[in-house]
Amino acid sequence: MNLLKETIDAIEGQNETVRAQAKERLDQLIMPHWALGRLMDLALDMAGICGSVRPSVERKTIVVMAGDHGITDAGVSLFPKKITVEMVRGFVNGVAGINVLARQAGADVKVVDMGVAGDLSALAAGGNILDRKIAAGTDNFAEGPAMDRDQAVRALEAGISVAQELADSTDLFGTGDRGIGNTSPSSAIVATLCQMPVAEVVGRGTGLDNAQLEYKIKILEKALALNNPDPSDPIDVLSKVGGFEIAGIAGLVLGAAALKKPIVIDGFISTAGALLTGRLAPKSREYMIAAHRSVEKGQVAALADLKKEPLLDLQFRLGVGTGAAVAMNLVEGAVGILTEMATFSEAAVSEAK
Amino acid sequence: MNLLKETIDAIEGQNETVRAQAKERLDQLIMPHWALGRLMDLALDMAGICGSVRPSVERKTIVVMAGDHGITDAGVSLFPKKITVEMVRGFVNGVAGINVLARQAGADVKVVDMGVAGDLSALAAGGNILDRKIAAGTDNFAEGPAMDRDQAVRALEAGISVAQELADSTDLFGTGDRGIGNTSPSSAIVATLCQMPVAEVVGRGTGLDNAQLEYKIKILEKALALNNPDPSDPIDVLSKVGGFEIAGIAGLVLGAAALKKPIVIDGFISTAGALLTGRLAPKSREYMIAAHRSVEKGQVAALADLKKEPLLDLQFRLGVGTGAAVAMNLVEGAVGILTEMATFSEAAVSEAK
Repeated sequence: MNLLKETIDAIEGQNETVRAQAKERLDQLIMPHWALGRLMDLALDMAGICGSVRPSVERKTIVVMAGDHGITDAGVSLFPKKITVEMVRGFVNGVAGINVLARQAGADVKVVDMGVAGDLSALAAGGNILDRKIAAGTDNFAEGPAMDRDQAVRALEAGISVAQELADSTDLFGTGDRGIGNTSPSSAIVATLCQMPVAEVVGRGTGLDNAQLEYKIKILEKALALNNPDPSDPIDVLSKVGGFEIAGIAGLVLGAAALKKPIVIDGFISTAGALLTGRLAPKSREYMIAAHRSVEKGQVAALADLKKEPLLDLQFRLGVGTGAAVAMNLVEGAVGILTEMATFSEAAVSEAK
Repeated sequence: MNLLKETIDAIEGQNETVRAQAKERLDQLIMPHWALGRLMDLALDMAGICGSVRPSVERKTIVVMAGDHGITDAGVSLFPKKITVEMVRGFVNGVAGINVLARQAGADVKVVDMGVAGDLSALAAGGNILDRKIAAGTDNFAEGPAMDRDQAVRALEAGISVAQELADSTDLFGTGDRGIGNTSPSSAIVATLCQMPVAEVVGRGTGLDNAQLEYKIKILEKALALNNPDPSDPIDVLSKVGGFEIAGIAGLVLGAAALKKPIVIDGFISTAGALLTGRLAPKSREYMIAAHRSVEKGQVAALADLKKEPLLDLQFRLGVGTGAAVAMNLVEGAVGILTEMATFSEAAVSEAK
């Protein structure tokens, strides 16, 4: 618990002095005022987060937290659990969507085994899989808690340790997730923390039809009634209805915020993780950049709670950090606006009348 | 008129056979079906446009069409006309927003002098300015036509010639504009072609207040009543209330479509140009990729007319190709999904039950 508490205590808000300096420069760039809109807001955030008017975005790392879920035994997902391992193989072989989009964005991909229900050691040889396995998948939270409280804390701390391990070689983090069935714990977390009916935060995951969706809602309603997670205690929520990779994401964001590193939050699963982080350490929100609006409707409530407006809406419903990868291009562009554009006086251009 | 007519006649729709081949592959990629949403739609378009399931996006060129506008004499813009030359200097020196965002996207920037009211020859030494000057700015269309019909045709053909000149070194085009006051002709074009009231398509440009906006609307209403452009004749509309750089954009899009090159359409001014293109050659729309939703509300009507949904909404109101540059990252990502991801059978991954 020491690492978790120390990390939470270490999180302060953005550097307001540097943020003001960046604002002053952005106000004077050679264009109509604030004409690059949201990229300029993002540039301000980057300056405030990094404490520099010349933040670097050279080294980008997308951390894909992977874990399995006992709740898949209740039949909430179309895909078999073994897909998680197969997908990790895809990441390691560089042929998955996240690899393509990370390459385009110039980002590295690191996979973290937070709790995959299979053996990844054969895939770990390339050095792109970090082993932080808490257990081989969570328990089925339709029948009891997903994990015990100690596991939840250890999973959060594992996420923090990943941030610490990668921070020296990372200017910009991105989150990602992989775990068959993980829209179910994410929905349960959002429903609990935002105190919303399950039906309002549950989506079709990888493609459920209406009957399957109804079934998923019923299972989650029963699971929440059974576990009765305490909305004022994020760790209780995580342990009862969460997942190891979601804890890993929450921890990664805590770690990044404590180290004053910007972190791009991917889709629904990542936003559920970030929601936990925001509850554990409200100031951590100042380090989060919301990548994209997911097709999963539960993300809307979580984003509203975090007071974040996503940068992109491309109708993604894949997760794995794919939205974060695409958004990293925008972060890079935003920093370029702050650091490479000239001001009116530098360029000797006439201003508005 | 020969080049214009030949180009229009040469424009055919996308290659449907290749598009279907791309669809077949995209349907089988290792992820839930179509889980990368709009990037997959875009990948389909790229295959259909380029006639290849392995389209290249290596070489990207943003063409910034520049021109001045007599209507600025009527006081519709906050900035003085001389800014156009100063801005072009910014582009050539690499310190403008478009330079930053084009660099981020790996795109070259070419400026075309379509009708700047100043001398750009001193800036042309670096080879990044193409001279296609029709005249030193349009006439004030609040008092008569902006240009004569012959100039309009020559300006369209100049745009086509730019596409032809750059096509050998360009896989993906982007449009851009520069010209103080050019939201006024763009609004007039959209109002005429979409048969909408001026007030519904006029925005604040570089930052007009309410009184200035009212004045701009009044000027444009009078100008349209005076010139009475024929909505069934795009060249009449262009000559009476258009601009040289808008004609250049329209011609560039025509040229790109005839050469089967994809072209990313920037914000409001570019969309007004593309609207002219779409009216001159409806199939040209199949080669257009709408980059972003501009703050200028007239773009909404033009996009609806072109049946295009923009990829991004970042509250940009700068033009110059900045939105196109950012969107080029998405096009590159889309092509990567088509060409670099594995299918279920290639990766030996289990499919949905």
